[in-house]
Amino acid sequence: MKEIEKLLGFREDIRVLDATLRDGGLVNDFRFSDEFVKQLYLTNLKAGVDYMELGYKANKEMFDVNDFGAWKFCDDEEILRVIGDNKDTSLKLAVMADVGRCDYKNDIHDRSESPVDLIRVATYVNTMPGAIDMIEDAHKKGYETSCNIMAISNAQEGDLKVALNMLGQSPVDCIYIVDSFGSLYPEQMARIVDMYKEAADKYGKKLGVHAHNNQQLAFANTIEAVGDGVDWLDATYSGMGRGAGNCTMENLLGFLRNPKYNLFPVIQFIEKYMIPLKESGITWGYDLQYLMTGILNQHPRTAIAFTKEQRKDYVEFYKEVVAQD
Amino acid sequence: MKEIEKLLGFREDIRVLDATLRDGGLVNDFRFSDEFVKQLYLTNLKAGVDYMELGYKANKEMFDVNDFGAWKFCDDEEILRVIGDNKDTSLKLAVMADVGRCDYKNDIHDRSESPVDLIRVATYVNTMPGAIDMIEDAHKKGYETSCNIMAISNAQEGDLKVALNMLGQSPVDCIYIVDSFGSLYPEQMARIVDMYKEAADKYGKKLGVHAHNNQQLAFANTIEAVGDGVDWLDATYSGMGRGAGNCTMENLLGFLRNPKYNLFPVIQFIEKYMIPLKESGITWGYDLQYLMTGILNQHPRTAIAFTKEQRKDYVEFYKEVVAQD
Repeated sequence: MKEIEKLLGFREDIRVLDATLRDGGLVNDFRFSDEFVKQLYLTNLKAGVDYMELGYKANKEMFDVNDFGAWKFCDDEEILRVIGDNKDTSLKLAVMADVGRCDYKNDIHDRSESPVDLIRVATYVNTMPGAIDMIEDAHKKGYETSCNIMAISNAQEGDLKVALNMLGQSPVDCIYIVDSFGSLYPEQMARIVDMYKEAADKYGKKLGVHAHNNQQLAFANTIEAVGDGVDWLDATYSGMGRGAGNCTMENLLGFLRNPKYNLFPVIQFIEKYMIPLKESGITWGYDLQYLMTGILNQHPRTAIAFTKEQRKDYVEFYKEVVAQD
Repeated sequence: MKEIEKLLGFREDIRVLDATLRDGGLVNDFRFSDEFVKQLYLTNLKAGVDYMELGYKANKEMFDVNDFGAWKFCDDEEILRVIGDNKDTSLKLAVMADVGRCDYKNDIHDRSESPVDLIRVATYVNTMPGAIDMIEDAHKKGYETSCNIMAISNAQEGDLKVALNMLGQSPVDCIYIVDSFGSLYPEQMARIVDMYKEAADKYGKKLGVHAHNNQQLAFANTIEAVGDGVDWLDATYSGMGRGAGNCTMENLLGFLRNPKYNLFPVIQFIEKYMIPLKESGITWGYDLQYLMTGILNQHPRTAIAFTKEQRKDYVEFYKEVVAQD
């Protein structure tokens, strides 16, 4: 049982990261209005959020700029135009860079020339050498770095331990536990944190958590991880994110006890921007099809397609996914 | 950390109780069609559910039969007409009886004359003597009995311990941990289970859990309780229940490992009956107003009114509830 101080007190080391534009961008192809982005930024400042993730640094050779909004690419000029240089604030800016889908040598400039503070490298276990090259590149350029190892619920524990040791020896600041399929139960989360913590403590790294809500456990898994010693916590406004979405910012800030965090501006932003976004037809969040892929520990792509096609034949869908080999 | 066997194996003592008609009835004034009730019953049989709660035994002197569907009152004749006598099945039938709102001496007949198996007495801490009188009455009439102590997140620990000792000395079979306001975090649930378990072990009682989803933690708190040794688990189809609703049956059966439980018929029922019910305008489930009352540890009645009035001014609502003394 966890110590009761963990519920009533707070750890100074906790960092909250708003991933709305990045994970939420996967839902609307990153087509957020300038006003939405600017107001989200101002809300994060008021709410005491520590990091704001703006989107991806996607390779424009691979992705057509006409198919996506600006936050798929996060050009420094675009950030400066919409948000400003973000100097002298307590909020740091982050972007995500996917292994194999980011021309990082060219597209990520020196930190001294960019408003970005943190490069978040996303990788699978088997592309770890590529991830480490990106981490070293970003580190040399002056950035803080973190690494999301995705789809770990399908990875072998042995492989994962090797990956954690490789990361431990890299300059990465924070290693993220990512429940890509929303398939983990809190008891499993506790066990995974234990494994990650061994490497993190050995190499002096921070741990983070990024959860998905397929089984209505994104918030529960996030606070399980907090109780187990994980410091960096991803959340999104109204849980906006791919498929079943993420841990909601409003749940998380309602839970954290550090008085620097404020729930009220989050509620203001949700009423003014998130509810209209949902009502405009942008769809995310817990639903039966996501529960099914979560229970079955599968990538949610089939459930996302089911949602997009506005299918309602849940029984037929279950037969399809349960039969996948 | 919980033993890994608890995740992969299963405990024979686990009992799943479907509370859809009872807690869900609070949403639609118990106006379920005969077909809905009969098919839910047949689905529970196929799904391996252990208990099906049919509704309340409400006092007809206090509640006008014209204001509610039949399952507010659960007359034996009505159960026999719609469901049958339920002999020779593995599914037991339950009804809830509220202290002060049930004419139990007259309306609850001998078990030998009734299709009902379990009387669930619902009480607040301060009406425990009334609850125990009802438990003794039902026990004498031949029923299994359980007791839900409601609103414990607002009760004093000392009072609760006295209540548990009183219950321990009664003939009750199972004592329920009820998170009426959906305000508990899993860490608190673990601590409360610990307290209840001391009394339960001393007096040879089973423990149950009934969770609400205000903070998207109904399922998480239920499986936390399972890991801590709680055996009787309440769930409802699609989480249908008062306000933010309950732990969903589909989450729970996806988690439990006992092969006697089957998820597939649950999905069939949801597609055919629960989705149309939602689409007909009956509203329940997690929403921002319920999160607020959950975080503030308040009864959700203000949030339910907000929902009924189709208000969208969440900011104004937050100001209202946060200012309550």
